[in-house]
Amino acid sequence: MDFAYSPKVQQLRERLTAFMEEHVYPAEAVFEQQVAEGNRWRPTAIMETLKARAKAEGLWNLFLPESDYGAGLSNLEYAPLAEIMGRSLIGPEPFNCSAPDTGNMEVLVRYGSTEQKKRWLEPLLAGEIRSGFAMTEPGVASSDATNMQASARRDGDEWVINGRKWWTSGASDPRCTVLIFMGLTNPDNPRHQQHSMILVPKDTPGVTVVRPLHVFGYDDAPHGHAEVLFENVRVPYENVILGEGRGFEIAQGRLGPGRIHHCMRSIGMAERALELMCKRSVSRTAFGKPLARLGGNLDHIADSRTEINMARLLTLNAAYMMDTVGNKVAASEIAQIKVVAPNVALRVIDRAIQMHGGAGVSQDFPLAYWYAMQRTLRLADGPDEVHRASIGKHELAKYVPREALRGR
Amino acid sequence: MDFAYSPKVQQLRERLTAFMEEHVYPAEAVFEQQVAEGNRWRPTAIMETLKARAKAEGLWNLFLPESDYGAGLSNLEYAPLAEIMGRSLIGPEPFNCSAPDTGNMEVLVRYGSTEQKKRWLEPLLAGEIRSGFAMTEPGVASSDATNMQASARRDGDEWVINGRKWWTSGASDPRCTVLIFMGLTNPDNPRHQQHSMILVPKDTPGVTVVRPLHVFGYDDAPHGHAEVLFENVRVPYENVILGEGRGFEIAQGRLGPGRIHHCMRSIGMAERALELMCKRSVSRTAFGKPLARLGGNLDHIADSRTEINMARLLTLNAAYMMDTVGNKVAASEIAQIKVVAPNVALRVIDRAIQMHGGAGVSQDFPLAYWYAMQRTLRLADGPDEVHRASIGKHELAKYVPREALRGR
Amino acid sequence: MDFAYSPKVQQLRERLTAFMEEHVYPAEAVFEQQVAEGNRWRPTAIMETLKARAKAEGLWNLFLPESDYGAGLSNLEYAPLAEIMGRSLIGPEPFNCSAPDTGNMEVLVRYGSTEQKKRWLEPLLAGEIRSGFAMTEPGVASSDATNMQASARRDGDEWVINGRKWWTSGASDPRCTVLIFMGLTNPDNPRHQQHSMILVPKDTPGVTVVRPLHVFGYDDAPHGHAEVLFENVRVPYENVILGEGRGFEIAQGRLGPGRIHHCMRSIGMAERALELMCKRSVSRTAFGKPLARLGGNLDHIADSRTEINMARLLTLNAAYMMDTVGNKVAASEIAQIKVVAPNVALRVIDRAIQMHGGAGVSQDFPLAYWYAMQRTLRLADGPDEVHRASIGKHELAKYVPREALRGR
Amino acid sequence: MDFAYSPKVQQLRERLTAFMEEHVYPAEAVFEQQVAEGNRWRPTAIMETLKARAKAEGLWNLFLPESDYGAGLSNLEYAPLAEIMGRSLIGPEPFNCSAPDTGNMEVLVRYGSTEQKKRWLEPLLAGEIRSGFAMTEPGVASSDATNMQASARRDGDEWVINGRKWWTSGASDPRCTVLIFMGLTNPDNPRHQQHSMILVPKDTPGVTVVRPLHVFGYDDAPHGHAEVLFENVRVPYENVILGEGRGFEIAQGRLGPGRIHHCMRSIGMAERALELMCKRSVSRTAFGKPLARLGGNLDHIADSRTEINMARLLTLNAAYMMDTVGNKVAASEIAQIKVVAPNVALRVIDRAIQMHGGAGVSQDFPLAYWYAMQRTLRLADGPDEVHRASIGKHELAKYVPREALRGR
Repeated sequence: MDFAYSPKVQQLRERLTAFMEEHVYPAEAVFEQQVAEGNRWRPTAIMETLKARAKAEGLWNLFLPESDYGAGLSNLEYAPLAEIMGRSLIGPEPFNCSAPDTGNMEVLVRYGSTEQKKRWLEPLLAGEIRSGFAMTEPGVASSDATNMQASARRDGDEWVINGRKWWTSGASDPRCTVLIFMGLTNPDNPRHQQHSMILVPKDTPGVTVVRPLHVFGYDDAPHGHAEVLFENVRVPYENVILGEGRGFEIAQGRLGPGRIHHCMRSIGMAERALELMCKRSVSRTAFGKPLARLGGNLDHIADSRTEINMARLLTLNAAYMMDTVGNKVAASEIAQIKVVAPNVALRVIDRAIQMHGGAGVSQDFPLAYWYAMQRTLRLADGPDEVHRASIGKHELAKYVPREALRGR
Repeated sequence: MDFAYSPKVQQLRERLTAFMEEHVYPAEAVFEQQVAEGNRWRPTAIMETLKARAKAEGLWNLFLPESDYGAGLSNLEYAPLAEIMGRSLIGPEPFNCSAPDTGNMEVLVRYGSTEQKKRWLEPLLAGEIRSGFAMTEPGVASSDATNMQASARRDGDEWVINGRKWWTSGASDPRCTVLIFMGLTNPDNPRHQQHSMILVPKDTPGVTVVRPLHVFGYDDAPHGHAEVLFENVRVPYENVILGEGRGFEIAQGRLGPGRIHHCMRSIGMAERALELMCKRSVSRTAFGKPLARLGGNLDHIADSRTEINMARLLTLNAAYMMDTVGNKVAASEIAQIKVVAPNVALRVIDRAIQMHGGAGVSQDFPLAYWYAMQRTLRLADGPDEVHRASIGKHELAKYVPREALRGR
Repeated sequence: MDFAYSPKVQQLRERLTAFMEEHVYPAEAVFEQQVAEGNRWRPTAIMETLKARAKAEGLWNLFLPESDYGAGLSNLEYAPLAEIMGRSLIGPEPFNCSAPDTGNMEVLVRYGSTEQKKRWLEPLLAGEIRSGFAMTEPGVASSDATNMQASARRDGDEWVINGRKWWTSGASDPRCTVLIFMGLTNPDNPRHQQHSMILVPKDTPGVTVVRPLHVFGYDDAPHGHAEVLFENVRVPYENVILGEGRGFEIAQGRLGPGRIHHCMRSIGMAERALELMCKRSVSRTAFGKPLARLGGNLDHIADSRTEINMARLLTLNAAYMMDTVGNKVAASEIAQIKVVAPNVALRVIDRAIQMHGGAGVSQDFPLAYWYAMQRTLRLADGPDEVHRASIGKHELAKYVPREALRGR
Repeated sequence: MDFAYSPKVQQLRERLTAFMEEHVYPAEAVFEQQVAEGNRWRPTAIMETLKARAKAEGLWNLFLPESDYGAGLSNLEYAPLAEIMGRSLIGPEPFNCSAPDTGNMEVLVRYGSTEQKKRWLEPLLAGEIRSGFAMTEPGVASSDATNMQASARRDGDEWVINGRKWWTSGASDPRCTVLIFMGLTNPDNPRHQQHSMILVPKDTPGVTVVRPLHVFGYDDAPHGHAEVLFENVRVPYENVILGEGRGFEIAQGRLGPGRIHHCMRSIGMAERALELMCKRSVSRTAFGKPLARLGGNLDHIADSRTEINMARLLTLNAAYMMDTVGNKVAASEIAQIKVVAPNVALRVIDRAIQMHGGAGVSQDFPLAYWYAMQRTLRLADGPDEVHRASIGKHELAKYVPREALRGR
């Protein structure tokens, strides 16, 4: 276990932190205002400004491990950078490091054909377009991904796609021009080889962005989370990624780094919530004392610090394992952080809300919005329940053959 | 302890339940649509229809204990009715039983002058106007109510009011025509006799409804929660309720029944969340089984049922004590329910969200909205922390003189 | 719901409380000393003295609902008395109200033959002998009672009993002269009709009390919890209670009131732990303040008070339901208290330990012993897990047929 | 952050693990039997055998960082070894690595005079004698160490010591020949310079080992936890360590490494409890399935794995910080592990108990005993509450001067 920040990483941390302080935090209110004033679903001018500046400074595509295209950082190296970006909801995009584009770019880098890379990866890497990932479906329990029912049927040189997806984040954004659709293509294959990933230009006839989904009252515009209908959508056969029936194989590869990113961003957000909580606790007074000195408030701060530290170390360790022994061996550790990070963030944010009184749930502080965003992460990419079952089974596999644990 | 539902109450429960099922639940979607389509801050037609119908059926002003004006129900009798109304966010208003009007009407019934009753209480009881309660302030920690800084200075026959209030629920609603302002009038009095309650017509010059406050992204329109600015607002001296410096005395009386109402509504909401959770758990399938049979899901249902039952019994017991030994003796019990009920509701709703997957946080189910509303109740009328400290001190007062526990 | 204490109950509460204060609490140290000094497994003189006194005062067999033999109290009436007795580990026996004799006597009252009553019930009611209940087995998971493997085979006019039981509380006590053995008699019957209850005199050849089981280091002498071996034990056929294959039928009836007793005793113990915690918190000083005023200590007291109140109301309500609608309809409520009461007691005792510092885990306070005793109650008569599953299934049965929930 | 196991450590881990498996685990039952059969307070033969063997293999005094006497391992290097030893309650002593001797030896290595080292350190290092640490007092709240009232008064060339101490672990063991007494010597100094540490031979007239303290019914013999009375005990003046009034200074230095040791041992114990839980869950059957597949059992295993991993990483990180930036800078991190490790161990052990049913609380498994031992660690060296307050204050010190947080 070597969690040291290399000089390269340390330097990037400093540059990122400086950028956040100089440019991103001050832009938060501007961003919010630009969204509120105009068409909520149109990209903001401020974000394009931030992107241009970050790109110019070379703080761009830091997430990409492969050195052909990206910064060449390992998961362990990128993790502390993701934490820094995660401190603001508008933190990742300036650096072209926001989901779901990061995951989609990784898929294309690893599994995309030359043609696919040229057409979709390059503009994504340049920050010229954005992308969506259409996997979750409203009609079935997504905890069991093999439930997916949207389908792509081959018809000559084309796929004919039908089905309804939702939580396709970013699909409402006009810059989003391509979706990675995942659906049933080979129903007769073994259970995890029935689905494929197919690239679908968003303007293909039959693709309808039905409506934005809200999260606790927030529409998360202009990015948002869309319900998308596919009706007899026809795309060329070669738009399939990697090959038929290999959807889950790709998904496995896609999810690992994405989980590190998500978790470190959650930790960054929790850190900032703790900062807000601390500052409030020493600046507000009740019964003649600062809040920090009343009742169990100091305990809440202590627990938050402790839990954040543990969540960070757990995530760094998972990243380290991914880098050294690979996703498969690190599967339990990756599942552990998937459960821990958002739950820790939620607890810290909730305590911070409580310390702020009514202001904490209002628009005057970002806490309630953060809470809503983190709450979805206990569901996105599989609910807590699925990941805990997986951790449990990994543990028991030390004692009995995995077959003995089949079924639920 | 006698928690039996009398025949009168049992009959009212049945009538209310029937009304909810026939009229209120089906109106929820209509209400939401009418708010979304029109001016969010204009009352909806559907609500006026519901009110007319409930009034016609005699299901009106059930909350009022005094028989001159109201249904003459005790707290213990009204409690199960509040639970039924609480099952829907639009449940209480049709019966003219929604906060903050209920509390304001009680204040006027108990402490209002004949003049005040005639001018404000009667139209409130008729459901013709609504009212606001302006107590919480943005600039100070409201956990310690004596922090309040907005003031009313006597100037001849008038009060001159200055200050900034927020979380004045309902103030944005055009039907809201009067505010009960609470502020500093007698700074030289002992600590709990410095504040007074004063009736302020909302259209008095100098009163500005500054903005609506959001709760987790919801504006709660058309009722909402407003920030209200008072700038040299002049009202007649006789608008003071009960007398100078008696604000806290009134507040004490106002809070008791209000807590029962709030808590029982929270319990009603928790019950409905549990219903949704159960129904989802038996209708969705993953890994070949209904969700109810996977992992710890049955435990979540069991814990929810148990916690709701305990919260309800605790609240009924507090109501019973209020009726039999009075608010003061029941102070610890009232504080207990104030902490328990919203926390139980939050836990149940959160589990229900989790059982619903992504749908649970979206607008397709009311769960996220309910969560947001319940979350504010851990802060409104004093945060959990203040009430737990109060419970603890009551307990210790069995062993040492209260003076020994002064300070924090 | 009518939880009122009738005058009869109120008077019994006062007499019991007086007896506890005058006789039982002062006897605790004496009892401990007599156990420590002599043969640990011999009854103490002090207990016989207490019994004689309580019997003389008519505080005797209060648990028995049937008026032929007992006090004729309903479950709701007996519950508050059980709470008072439960405040001391030696509290129930002076009143001939201690487990497992109470349950065994109830079984004999309800299901025993005239002969069985004469031989066993009468001396039990007189407090002249004690009894054991031999059900749990070391070799199988007792959470599923149908796992039981000890058997009784009919051989002419006799039963021939073989098997190993444990947690047969009281079997090491020389006053214990009879055991109710439950075991497999009719393996070909449907699953819940395969077992019978059979009365076995403890001195029957082949019965061996193997060893006392410890609970967290305590042997709980002189009552204790024994492992008992049955090797070709022969008893008359007519010793079967009620009839062959009716063991579970009896067990169901036996468990209901026993759960109320256990839970109310847990609540009594929790109340006394809270008293100790409060007293310690106001009498010890650190950093210049009583412990009660440090950090979150007041919160721990508040939470304890609140949780105890809820657990008591839940148990009283279950008792009320047992009395009015019967065990079967009240099954979920009975399962709820079985989970709640010991868990609440454990939390309260644990907080009390923490408030006492090192003294809390030592023999200078009864807290650690109480903790150990309560901890076993999360396992005895079925672990929490079984009861929560049962609560969950009852809840879901409101929405789907029970068959749909079969299996686990 | 570099948590890698160096080859040296890796090799020691393997040797230790082998020793535990070959010699220590099989000795547990023997040890227990030897304690039970003989005089409980006499050292066991098996332990001396284990010590001789470990010493012969060079697995001796591994805890000592200084290379003059010890293995020269850093805290980070020793931590994983402490975890391995901690898997058994008799695990540390064979390697001469058990508390309180480790802490006492460290004190003597760092602060002892040549004379003190020769007389006490050398036989301790050789495992020929043992030692006690007499700090906690029954009469005052030990959470605030400055409460200590036992005193040493200078009288010419001697100290005259008076006072009552308890929780002096090991003092009942006849091998224990010296106590480090901490008490008030300079009451007029500033608050943290009033106390000194003084070496007191146990056989000095006036020293009385009053009684063993029990922990949840366990006396922890032959080590145990004693109450010790000092009545006009006279020792030479030069027995003071480091100098007058420097007791707290030494205590600070003593506590850091000790906390790493304690926490890693807790983690080792938690790991072994998890092993027992897993094995039980796949070997016992109820309702036709292994326990592991029932209800939330898999979740309990998953949570245990996750929490242990986090606690270990947090502790390793604290050890790393101690090694690199020192105790003072790492103060918050050390306080964090002091809270986390025993609490995690308790949760894991409690879940393991539950999975074992009645067997879990009995002497047939070590779980209840482990629980009792871990429970004391939430109190020893300061209760959780003190450490959480310290963590909270460290956190707030990032935002306000420490002075602003004085008081509680």
